Amino acid sequence: MSNENTLSFDRIQYILSELPFFEDFSADELEKFSKNLSLRSFHENSCLFQEGDIGDYLFFVVTGQVEVKIQSHKSSQIVIAKFGPGSSIGEMSLLDDYPRSATIQVSEPSELLLLSRKRLKALCEENPATGLKFMEGLVKTLSYRLRQANGRFADIS
Amino acid sequence: MSNENTLSFDRIQYILSELPFFEDFSADELEKFSKNLSLRSFHENSCLFQEGDIGDYLFFVVTGQVEVKIQSHKSSQIVIAKFGPGSSIGEMSLLDDYPRSATIQVSEPSELLLLSRKRLKALCEENPATGLKFMEGLVKTLSYRLRQANGRFADIS
Repeated sequence: MSNENTLSFDRIQYILSELPFFEDFSADELEKFSKNLSLRSFHENSCLFQEGDIGDYLFFVVTGQVEVKIQSHKSSQIVIAKFGPGSSIGEMSLLDDYPRSATIQVSEPSELLLLSRKRLKALCEENPATGLKFMEGLVKTLSYRLRQANGRFADIS
Repeated sequence: MSNENTLSFDRIQYILSELPFFEDFSADELEKFSKNLSLRSFHENSCLFQEGDIGDYLFFVVTGQVEVKIQSHKSSQIVIAKFGPGSSIGEMSLLDDYPRSATIQVSEPSELLLLSRKRLKALCEENPATGLKFMEGLVKTLSYRLRQANGRFADIS
């Protein structure tokens, strides 16, 4: 392993330790994840993926901000959410085989941590207990989003 | 263990093997779950839980039907979904500590399989790989619901 990779893993492990999603993870568990995530920079207005794309990764916002847009019947696209540092995006396509439910655009220069389905699967096979903890985090995140979505629906009924 | 319990576990295991949620589970994994679920009958109009209640279990509809109702600003309560055999309800409160997001009422005589947070936790600790598979199922279920909720929002924007 090169020094450059080691430094990168150390930085990723530090970033993970600061993310709310990983707050209950041990140093050993964070190390396992740090080797399966990649850190990438994106320019403002970069489109990460479009509604309808086939997707197989999620990402965490480390710095910057992304916008979530969906197609509406009455207007071309509406921004339904903006996410900053600490947020995770793309959980839904990580396990199911449906297309992306929204378009994600970077609204200011951003650093993102990417986790692919393939890497997550390998990690879960090697460390079921760590994988389980990660899945519990996904369930909580999706539950929170669903509560928001249902609430929003009730508000406008 | 009494014969009655053994018969009950066998019946629960058979029911589980017929539920779409457990279609990828082995006989051994189904057996582990069957000992942690309880089968209960409910009369028509029984209220299982109300929006705002603190909840710590999910259930699968085996026979019958339940209605999901939420409080709207304009009307007293609106039915947002009806679920029949094979459906799971209550996933959100299984892991997070927020109150129930909806009221669930039994709309015809029903048999339901209940799984408590406590039993799931014990099962996950004893069998992380089986727990992981269950959590992946929850992620897929919640993703599906979120896709429906976001789609519904786009339709009426």
